[in-house]
Amino acid sequence: MIVTYDGSAFFGFQVQVGVPTVQGELERALELILGEKVRVHGSGRTDTGVHALGQVVMIQTACPIPVDKLIVALNGALPPAIRIRRLEAAPPGFHPRFSARAKHYRYLFQEVAERSPFLERYVCQVEGALLDREKMAQGAACFLGEHDFSAFTRSPASKENPVRTILESRLTPVGPALAFDVVGTGFLHNMVRNMAKALLLIGRHEMDPREISELYRNQDRRRLGSPAPAAGLYLMRVMY
Amino acid sequence: MIVTYDGSAFFGFQVQVGVPTVQGELERALELILGEKVRVHGSGRTDTGVHALGQVVMIQTACPIPVDKLIVALNGALPPAIRIRRLEAAPPGFHPRFSARAKHYRYLFQEVAERSPFLERYVCQVEGALLDREKMAQGAACFLGEHDFSAFTRSPASKENPVRTILESRLTPVGPALAFDVVGTGFLHNMVRNMAKALLLIGRHEMDPREISELYRNQDRRRLGSPAPAAGLYLMRVMY
Repeated sequence: MIVTYDGSAFFGFQVQVGVPTVQGELERALELILGEKVRVHGSGRTDTGVHALGQVVMIQTACPIPVDKLIVALNGALPPAIRIRRLEAAPPGFHPRFSARAKHYRYLFQEVAERSPFLERYVCQVEGALLDREKMAQGAACFLGEHDFSAFTRSPASKENPVRTILESRLTPVGPALAFDVVGTGFLHNMVRNMAKALLLIGRHEMDPREISELYRNQDRRRLGSPAPAAGLYLMRVMY
Repeated sequence: MIVTYDGSAFFGFQVQVGVPTVQGELERALELILGEKVRVHGSGRTDTGVHALGQVVMIQTACPIPVDKLIVALNGALPPAIRIRRLEAAPPGFHPRFSARAKHYRYLFQEVAERSPFLERYVCQVEGALLDREKMAQGAACFLGEHDFSAFTRSPASKENPVRTILESRLTPVGPALAFDVVGTGFLHNMVRNMAKALLLIGRHEMDPREISELYRNQDRRRLGSPAPAAGLYLMRVMY
């Protein structure tokens, strides 16, 4: 399944007791329609407030409902904040997480005279002076390639390998917003929001693009402060 | 004060115990900043999910904080879903509700191939065949003038005078949406959402524009069914 959701309506992707989550809502709708408990496997978690246009999830079921009927029934049982866009039989051996080759995330900034309640959940609103887009583009280019992204994740005690490979990284105006599009073979926790935070600091002349390479070396997690808000982040596509 | 809010974050304007409301949040912020309990008077209530760009509210206080400082402090204390746009001393005898001469509401329709989670809270999403905008414009014109709007409100036992005067009523494309703008000297409960519902039925050829005059005469509250969703409705401006 390819799933779109407005992350502001949920406490993240992963099931948690007592609060609405994307996985929880999907499993509830599936149980209602299929008449059996099924486990939803996603391409990865998204945090509270993070959106998805192209989250990929898989279920295993012996249910004989044809996929074109099933998608209509499921969308009818899901809250409007979650929509299944495509539903098809997976190839043998496919796993949404382990088969993924790369992911495309988009982070949206928007320069505003004053913050709008209507943008609050969907972009990172930037008040004050205009962002230096040229410097930000230089910063985005520094992410390309294989680097130690320790400074771009919050978990200092993690035993995870902090080296990740970024295949694409660019800034593009999208309507009134400025989009940071990044494609990588994998991402650490909070990594994209920390990359966005670095670009925000660069755009405000509070950081020089060259400092990014220093961060790869010195792994200084304090330099970026808190990550950019979840509201601006969208999981666009998972590539297989 | 002129106040903008995203109504999807609140259980309507009016204070209710145990749930977030616009009035409740304003009074909480005011108490925090002014150090005293103050009552917020609005130009009128808005229902759960209804938005405002130009709600007008008034408070009485002896607090000597200058208005330009007060607006910054209050916006700092308010949730991002509520923003005060202007704050100034009211003229003597002013009351946001009783001094109002007219109100401008906007209702947004948007034709979509499939419903988007990201539009769900902000427009009335219309799936399927395109709306007949010409017929809808004819319908909107039928609202102009003084009419008995009993068929456009849900409270059948109300003793309120059901006659209201509509000064402006038109349809305009606004970006990808279709806006129904209506200005009237006063509105019954749910009246704009029921007018929008009539236009929706007309746009889908489920009702003829001429039926609107019949509704003024026969006061048939069942004809329109449930009102159009709250999500599409915006209080734009209150005129004094």
